[in-house]
Amino acid sequence: MVRRRFLAIFVVVLLNAGGAQTALASDSTTADRIAQRLLTRGLRDSRAYDLLRELTTIAPHRLSGSRGAAVALELTGEMLRRVGATNVRAESLMVPHWERGALEKGEVWLSGRSSPLPLSVCALGGSIATPRKGIVAEVIEVKSLEEASHLGPKANGKIVFYNRPMDPTLFETFAAYGGAVDQRGGGAVAAAQAGGVAALVRSITLAHDRVPHTGAMGYRDGVPKVPAAALSTVDADTLSALLRRDPHLKVRLELSCRSLPDAPSANVMGEIIGSEHPEEIIVVGGHIDCWDKGDGAHDDGAGCVQAIEVLRLFRELGIRPKRTIRTVMFMNEENGSRGGKAYATHPDRARERHVAAIESDRGGFAPRGFTVQGDSVLFERVMKWQSAFAALGADHITRGHGGVDIGPIVEKEAPGFGLVVENHRYFDYHHSGNDTLDKVNPRELELGAIAMAMLCYCLSEM
Amino acid sequence: MVRRRFLAIFVVVLLNAGGAQTALASDSTTADRIAQRLLTRGLRDSRAYDLLRELTTIAPHRLSGSRGAAVALELTGEMLRRVGATNVRAESLMVPHWERGALEKGEVWLSGRSSPLPLSVCALGGSIATPRKGIVAEVIEVKSLEEASHLGPKANGKIVFYNRPMDPTLFETFAAYGGAVDQRGGGAVAAAQAGGVAALVRSITLAHDRVPHTGAMGYRDGVPKVPAAALSTVDADTLSALLRRDPHLKVRLELSCRSLPDAPSANVMGEIIGSEHPEEIIVVGGHIDCWDKGDGAHDDGAGCVQAIEVLRLFRELGIRPKRTIRTVMFMNEENGSRGGKAYATHPDRARERHVAAIESDRGGFAPRGFTVQGDSVLFERVMKWQSAFAALGADHITRGHGGVDIGPIVEKEAPGFGLVVENHRYFDYHHSGNDTLDKVNPRELELGAIAMAMLCYCLSEM
Repeated sequence: MVRRRFLAIFVVVLLNAGGAQTALASDSTTADRIAQRLLTRGLRDSRAYDLLRELTTIAPHRLSGSRGAAVALELTGEMLRRVGATNVRAESLMVPHWERGALEKGEVWLSGRSSPLPLSVCALGGSIATPRKGIVAEVIEVKSLEEASHLGPKANGKIVFYNRPMDPTLFETFAAYGGAVDQRGGGAVAAAQAGGVAALVRSITLAHDRVPHTGAMGYRDGVPKVPAAALSTVDADTLSALLRRDPHLKVRLELSCRSLPDAPSANVMGEIIGSEHPEEIIVVGGHIDCWDKGDGAHDDGAGCVQAIEVLRLFRELGIRPKRTIRTVMFMNEENGSRGGKAYATHPDRARERHVAAIESDRGGFAPRGFTVQGDSVLFERVMKWQSAFAALGADHITRGHGGVDIGPIVEKEAPGFGLVVENHRYFDYHHSGNDTLDKVNPRELELGAIAMAMLCYCLSEM
Repeated sequence: MVRRRFLAIFVVVLLNAGGAQTALASDSTTADRIAQRLLTRGLRDSRAYDLLRELTTIAPHRLSGSRGAAVALELTGEMLRRVGATNVRAESLMVPHWERGALEKGEVWLSGRSSPLPLSVCALGGSIATPRKGIVAEVIEVKSLEEASHLGPKANGKIVFYNRPMDPTLFETFAAYGGAVDQRGGGAVAAAQAGGVAALVRSITLAHDRVPHTGAMGYRDGVPKVPAAALSTVDADTLSALLRRDPHLKVRLELSCRSLPDAPSANVMGEIIGSEHPEEIIVVGGHIDCWDKGDGAHDDGAGCVQAIEVLRLFRELGIRPKRTIRTVMFMNEENGSRGGKAYATHPDRARERHVAAIESDRGGFAPRGFTVQGDSVLFERVMKWQSAFAALGADHITRGHGGVDIGPIVEKEAPGFGLVVENHRYFDYHHSGNDTLDKVNPRELELGAIAMAMLCYCLSEM
C-alpha cells in the first residue's frame, strides 16, 4: 500500500515535471514562431510606410485644434476600419489651440550697418505674438535659466538669448535633450522675470544646420508674457560670435502667432476583441498631433501608423488574441497631453481593465527594445521573452518610462511599455521642417510595428 | 613550525584572493572608464566625419588602378601622419584595373514601336564592352542561375535577365544579399553557357528606385565572355511587366567598359607602437578602394576613416597601448581582394605576430556589436567585456566572419573581429550612385570608431 502510494506520487511528479517542461518548451517555441511569422509577413507586405505616406500627404500639419488634426482623425479612423479593426470610434475632448500665423522673422542689425543679416527663427509653441512692428532690442546671451535669473539690470529691455547646446557626449540623445529643453520651456518666464522683452532659444537638436526646431513653451501667472522663438543652431553660433564682436547689436523679431479658445477634438481608436478576456485591454498607440513645422513623420506619425499596422498584422496572420488589443491615436501630446488624460478618465474605462499600455513615440527608426514601467515581478516575466525579441533586433529590455500619452492610464492601472529605437538621428528632425517622410526608412518603420505586435502578442497570451 | 607554515600559506592565499578580486574589479572599472573617455572625447571632437568629407571630396572615385585610388592612398597616408601615427608607409602590390568608360546605356524596344524606353543600367565590374554598335536582342527572364542552365535553345541569341530580388523577409540584410548575389557574380557565365549574348541583372538592393547597383562579376575559362550589366529594381520590375505583355520586345545595351593590364598600387598603413609588446600587432582597417558609381562613403570610406580615428582617439587621450595598433587601408577589396592577400604575405609579417585583426566594412551606421572569428576560449574571454561595450550600444557580440580584407591574416595567425552595425539601410546605397556622404550620420560614424577603439584597447591590454 505504501509502495503503491509512493509509486503514484512518483508518477504524478514525473507527469507534472514532463508537463511543465513541455509547456515551457512550447511557450518558447510559440513565441519564436510568432516572432518569425510577424517578421516574414510584416517585411513582405510592409504597409506601415504606405500608411505614413498617406498620413503625411493628406494631413501633414496636425497641431491640436487645426484643420489638419481633424482630417488626421478622420483618416486614421478610416485606416483602422480598413485593417479590420472593430469598434472604431472617437472619444471627444477639448484641446489647446495655438496658431503660428503667417509671419515669423528674425534679423540681426549690427552697429552702424544699414542692412540686416537674416536669422532663421520660428515661434515656440504657445508664444504670444510680437507687437505688429516687431521687437527690436539688444541681446544678452546666457547658458541657463539660472544664469538668466542672476542677470540683474543688464537684462532690462533686452532679448534674452539661451544658447546652451544639447550635450553631444551623452550616448543617450534623450538624456541630452532632457538636459537642454528647460531653456525652451522656461526661457520666456525667466527672461520676463529678468526684465527682458523676449526669449530667443537655441534649437534643441544635435544637428548643425539652419533649420529652427519648435516645441512647447510656457508662461506663469503673475509674470509678464514675452514672445519666445527658436533659433537654428547655426544661427545661434553666428549670433553668439557676432555678440562677442559687437555687444550692442540689435535683433529684430516679428511673430504673428496666437492662442485661440480651446477647440473640440478627440482620441480615435479601434480594436481586436480578445477571445478569452475581452474586457482586459492592451492599449497600443502613438500621438496623432504634431508640430506644424514639418509633417510629423517621425514624431509621431510613425507611432500612429505602427499601432495601426499592429492590428493589420494580427488580422492578416489570423491571430486572435486572448485579450483585447486597442489601437489609440492620442491627441495633443505636444502641447497639453490632453488626449492621454482624457483617455484614462473616460467613463468607458470604468467597465474595462487595462493590463498593459504600449507607446511608440521615439521615431520610426530601427527598434532596439523597449522600456518596462512596472514592478520587478513583471519585469522578470517580460525578460523571459527576450530571446523571441532578439530575432527582431529588439531585445534591449530595460526598466523605464513608457510614454507621455499612456502615462495617465499607466498611473491608474496598467504597466507601461515604450518602444525603444535607434536614437542618434531623432533630434536632427524632431519638431522641425525636416521631420518629413523621406527621413523614415520603410523597413525600419515596419520592424518597429512588428516589435510592437510581438509585445502585444506576449502580453495578450500572458 | 607546522603552524607558522600553515599561517604563511593562509596569508598568501588571502593576499592572492584579495589581489585577484582587486584586479578583476579594477579591470572592469578600467574598461568602463576607458569606454566613457572614448565616448566623451569622440562625441565631443567627432573627427571621423571630417575625414570622410575630405576623402569623398578629394578622392570620391577609388576603384583599384584608378587615379582616384592613388590619390586616396596619398591622402590617407597624410591623414595617418596628421593624427600622429608612426611608421606611415605603403606596401606595394599589383591590382586588377577595370574601367567603366564613358558609355553605358540601355533601351527597351517594344514590338512595333519606333522609339525606345530608357532603362537605367550600369556595367558590372569586370564586364567586357558590348560591340561598338551595342547589342540588340530579345530577352529571357529567369530567377536563378539554375533556371538559366535549363533554358536550352530558348536562350539562344538572347539577353538573359536575372530577376530574383533580395529576400526582404530576412531580418539580416547581409543574408538577403548573400542569397541574391550569385546572379551578379555568375550571371554572365550561365548566360553564355545557355547561348545568351549578354546578362542583365536586377540590382542587389532592397531599395525600390531607379538607381543601378554595380559590383563584381566573373568569367570562366572556356566559356565565352558576354557583357553583363545591372538594372535598377524599378526598371527590372518594369522590364518584367513589359515582357509579360510583349515577349518579343528587344533590349539594346551599350557598354564601353574594359579591362587593362594589372596596375601598381598599395596598402597604406601607420601605427602606434606598443609599450610592452611592440612586435605584437593589432590590425584595424577598412578598404580604401570602392566602386566608381558613388563616392564609397559607406563602402568603405567609413571603415577607413574610422580606423584612422581609432589612432587619433588613442593619441588625444594619451593612451599608450601595450601592443602595437596598426591602421591599414586595404586596397582592392571590391574586385580581387589583393590587398588583404598582399598584407598577409608581405615579408615584414615574418618579424611580427598578429594578435588580432579588426575590420569595419558594413557601413558607417550606428554600431551594434561585433563578430568574433576565433575559438571558444577567446570568445568567452571577449564576452567578459560585454558590459563595457553596452555603454557604446555595441554589446551584441556573436561568433562570425571578421571581414574580407583581414581574411588572409586571420587564416594565418590572428583572431578576427568585424564591426557589426545597424544594417537595414546599407544595401539601399551599396555599390550605387547613392553611396555618398549625405547618407552618413556623423554621430553614428563616430560611434563606430569609438567601438573599434574600445575593442583595440581591450585586445591590447588582454
